[in-house]
Amino acid sequence: MSAPSNDANEPRSVTLLLHCPLRLGIAASLTQFVYKHGGSILYHDQYVDPEIQHYYTRLRWDLSGFSLSDADTAAGLRGLIGFAPDAVWSLHFSDEIPRMAVFVSKDPWCLYDILARSQSGEWAVKVPVVIGNHPDLEPVATRFGIEFRHFPVTKENKDAVETEQLAFLERRRIEFVVLARYMQILSGRFVQAYPHRIINIHHAFLPAFPGARPYHSARARGVKMIGATSHYVTETLDAGPIIEQDVRRVTHRQSVKDLIRMGRDLEKVVLSRAVWSHIRRKIIVHEGRTVVFD
Amino acid sequence: MSAPSNDANEPRSVTLLLHCPLRLGIAASLTQFVYKHGGSILYHDQYVDPEIQHYYTRLRWDLSGFSLSDADTAAGLRGLIGFAPDAVWSLHFSDEIPRMAVFVSKDPWCLYDILARSQSGEWAVKVPVVIGNHPDLEPVATRFGIEFRHFPVTKENKDAVETEQLAFLERRRIEFVVLARYMQILSGRFVQAYPHRIINIHHAFLPAFPGARPYHSARARGVKMIGATSHYVTETLDAGPIIEQDVRRVTHRQSVKDLIRMGRDLEKVVLSRAVWSHIRRKIIVHEGRTVVFD
Amino acid sequence: MSAPSNDANEPRSVTLLLHCPLRLGIAASLTQFVYKHGGSILYHDQYVDPEIQHYYTRLRWDLSGFSLSDADTAAGLRGLIGFAPDAVWSLHFSDEIPRMAVFVSKDPWCLYDILARSQSGEWAVKVPVVIGNHPDLEPVATRFGIEFRHFPVTKENKDAVETEQLAFLERRRIEFVVLARYMQILSGRFVQAYPHRIINIHHAFLPAFPGARPYHSARARGVKMIGATSHYVTETLDAGPIIEQDVRRVTHRQSVKDLIRMGRDLEKVVLSRAVWSHIRRKIIVHEGRTVVFD
Amino acid sequence: MSAPSNDANEPRSVTLLLHCPLRLGIAASLTQFVYKHGGSILYHDQYVDPEIQHYYTRLRWDLSGFSLSDADTAAGLRGLIGFAPDAVWSLHFSDEIPRMAVFVSKDPWCLYDILARSQSGEWAVKVPVVIGNHPDLEPVATRFGIEFRHFPVTKENKDAVETEQLAFLERRRIEFVVLARYMQILSGRFVQAYPHRIINIHHAFLPAFPGARPYHSARARGVKMIGATSHYVTETLDAGPIIEQDVRRVTHRQSVKDLIRMGRDLEKVVLSRAVWSHIRRKIIVHEGRTVVFD
Repeated sequence: MSAPSNDANEPRSVTLLLHCPLRLGIAASLTQFVYKHGGSILYHDQYVDPEIQHYYTRLRWDLSGFSLSDADTAAGLRGLIGFAPDAVWSLHFSDEIPRMAVFVSKDPWCLYDILARSQSGEWAVKVPVVIGNHPDLEPVATRFGIEFRHFPVTKENKDAVETEQLAFLERRRIEFVVLARYMQILSGRFVQAYPHRIINIHHAFLPAFPGARPYHSARARGVKMIGATSHYVTETLDAGPIIEQDVRRVTHRQSVKDLIRMGRDLEKVVLSRAVWSHIRRKIIVHEGRTVVFD
Repeated sequence: MSAPSNDANEPRSVTLLLHCPLRLGIAASLTQFVYKHGGSILYHDQYVDPEIQHYYTRLRWDLSGFSLSDADTAAGLRGLIGFAPDAVWSLHFSDEIPRMAVFVSKDPWCLYDILARSQSGEWAVKVPVVIGNHPDLEPVATRFGIEFRHFPVTKENKDAVETEQLAFLERRRIEFVVLARYMQILSGRFVQAYPHRIINIHHAFLPAFPGARPYHSARARGVKMIGATSHYVTETLDAGPIIEQDVRRVTHRQSVKDLIRMGRDLEKVVLSRAVWSHIRRKIIVHEGRTVVFD
Repeated sequence: MSAPSNDANEPRSVTLLLHCPLRLGIAASLTQFVYKHGGSILYHDQYVDPEIQHYYTRLRWDLSGFSLSDADTAAGLRGLIGFAPDAVWSLHFSDEIPRMAVFVSKDPWCLYDILARSQSGEWAVKVPVVIGNHPDLEPVATRFGIEFRHFPVTKENKDAVETEQLAFLERRRIEFVVLARYMQILSGRFVQAYPHRIINIHHAFLPAFPGARPYHSARARGVKMIGATSHYVTETLDAGPIIEQDVRRVTHRQSVKDLIRMGRDLEKVVLSRAVWSHIRRKIIVHEGRTVVFD
Repeated sequence: MSAPSNDANEPRSVTLLLHCPLRLGIAASLTQFVYKHGGSILYHDQYVDPEIQHYYTRLRWDLSGFSLSDADTAAGLRGLIGFAPDAVWSLHFSDEIPRMAVFVSKDPWCLYDILARSQSGEWAVKVPVVIGNHPDLEPVATRFGIEFRHFPVTKENKDAVETEQLAFLERRRIEFVVLARYMQILSGRFVQAYPHRIINIHHAFLPAFPGARPYHSARARGVKMIGATSHYVTETLDAGPIIEQDVRRVTHRQSVKDLIRMGRDLEKVVLSRAVWSHIRRKIIVHEGRTVVFD
């Protein structure tokens, strides 16, 4: 099938994500490093939080004419950033396709959306496995030719199951996890194993209506808009760094059932925008918030 | 000054707002009443909440050719609705221009917007007085030729001041109150004197960020949209029936100061939509929520 | 797989769509007809266009306790509406699942979205066939177990191919057609065979940027929002009655490629809302515009 | 009256707007220039259009500790940018408050909004005069203590009147013009006198519905959203570089009169966002489009 205008057609490139306390000349030294070795800059954006005088940048360059090997690139940057020992940075080569696991329960819409995007070439991502705490969505995974693993979770076995899941994810070399309407709360231990690498979709405009049954709460409160929020999972429920949000206008005419139906599209679009930003290495997390570059 | 396409140019009409437990034939008997006496229906909308089997309607008709006097219209409807003793209804003649008081503190934007709309003929409303707990906005009221009353409120004198304010509002025959960035919490006694007749603007997407300094909280939480909510004031802070809400997209780039600036436009537009719906008799409040007809 | 809160779980019902020049008592006679025979009204909305004094209504009732057969219901309504010979109306029983054909070219996103919704039970619709003027999306149809038919169209054979297509659609008893990024213009003859039963998605905010390459035009014009429009196809390109539109904010930073990527989500959501309204029998077309009930 | 969080409270600063064909090291040399002379950067954003390899930047720095005089700053930059003879740039000191003329006809809403913002201190701008081709809005200007000039324009006298207006604007040292629902088309000669310094508000989502009566056209076409567009005026009607747009959802229920009413708020908010971006020196115009920095 013909790939839509996607990542796969692009020349090999590398993306640097970096943040550190603001100091003079960082941008210049980074861009000069790229130019000196024959790189062509494809994207460069930066942001300074004036309140905390903190610098954030995303720099992506074409490797076609770049003279350094990947290892030398990393080493070169390490030298360059050495003068900023408090910098946090990572380097992502465009042909290192991230491996993602999707966790589901019974609701299919986000899963369908994710699998369609990954298989049509819209996203440069590999989905080796779908994990369900119910077996209901196995046929969806199967339809897309993807392994489905059923891990039934109960209060009693949760600890043991998470141990199994973590081992399984490691065996499948999973880099990040998407909770696509997964109706289980992960333990702190699980979350710590994937810091800022578990993306959840919550079906409300956080911090309004955290927790269970937000559409029922929205209807009861009589709000005039419903929302969805995707965020990185932290140890506190629905309190992790927000990646993306969107809303849709409702009136008194919409029943809870209508809200649930209308909310589905919000959920899948908001989750997919978040996953895309994650895959494209556009997100820096710092102090409980995200910087999401364009 | 030429009036823009506004209410003033319209023929005399009357609006009925009614809600009651659903029963057969209400709509038919109401519309037949109008037609029988020569009225021409300008607007008719209805809504049934299927969950609680409750009926809500708004019916507006032209009085040009209507054969009943205002008193007989009310009496006729009383007879008609008699079989529905649990109906709550009100009748509003278009030439009874509502009298509104605006309460302010120091922020001018909502006040300017309200006064511009009322004086340009966009709204069919009278604003006899602006009340401030600070004197700062007196020049704005004066510029529009409107009385300004300064009632300084402290913890100690609040009870006495509210007594004065209520007496003053009665003397000015005020029908409803708009809190246009009024930074004081009204007592239960005050609120009860104007049930569903005090409209507030809260500078957040309720129920997110109730209380003070919502833009600071929004920035701290890292939300990707900010909002504003206008609602009827009840005895619980920021928990009254929501009339209107809107949001605007923000990114990590917006400082608290930017949010405050961007929020101003949300606040004034959302408040004004709510006031307009109130003036045009488009709102029914029931069980803590609003039905806002188109 | 467990069906999400969808149509399939609902009791059998029937939907009446009707419009006619406004006259007194229509609503009352319709609702009385329903009640007299033991029907329970699930939805009733109406709209009067005051400019042309035209009446539009949608009435849906539960058939569980309804005493008339389907044929007698139709006959009863025919009698009832007899006094309004200029009324246009149709009756839709909820267990008559509409049969839809999807036309595609090479772009997969709308097709995936439609098939996911139809197969997960979100929509009460049957999709017997996907028709492509290119073979590219055959694997997608196959993945969902749906017949794919390849009709290559050229300038020379277009007339003959359309004849074949129409015969084929008839054999498959197709009730309506969805053009899911189908990059061919249908002839007037084809359109007339499915009046107001061909739904298209145009990747712009019509009437801005009709025709080819709207994202390129949007970028060239420097608009600050992009949009998508779904509409019924008529004989004039991109000029049919609009069913749904939505937009998304963009800045100078988005390249044409970004617009194309961001537009995909608009396209699929806008198209799917339109298809859903069509399937749920919420749309009346009149004088080149749509009334879309909630 | 207390000023809301506005520009007036800020320390003196200067803003550089610059664009030129992309070349290496521009950003570094600009920021080093600022730092070398003791400036503290308040804002720095840049954008490269990869398609045309063109560089755009906005740089604002605090002058509190800056060691150069204003003249030396300009001279220093001239030297610095000398190596880029094709650069287009301008320097704006924050205490040079721009002088703006507002052109109106009969519609008051945008004028009220502009005068409220300028007089409440929300905008750092001076409005020495309001010019009307009708006398209707003189009372509004007077209310705000601003000179009103009535220039009646007819087909016959247009050329002569524009000559007078241009002379008058020069006498009042007007830097830029805002057409706040001014229902006259300016001649090419007038437009050339204020290149990219005349801001118009058009009451539609351009390029949809250019020209007269866009709400009537929107209703006739049956669109599901209405919009407003503010743009710099060029010699071609409604075709100038777009600064800002926004939309609001409508349904079949809204009459033309409703669209006009709802559109007012869009018009004034969209126009004011554009004026604010202009005043804050956030806009670069290039090749018929705008770059609007955050």
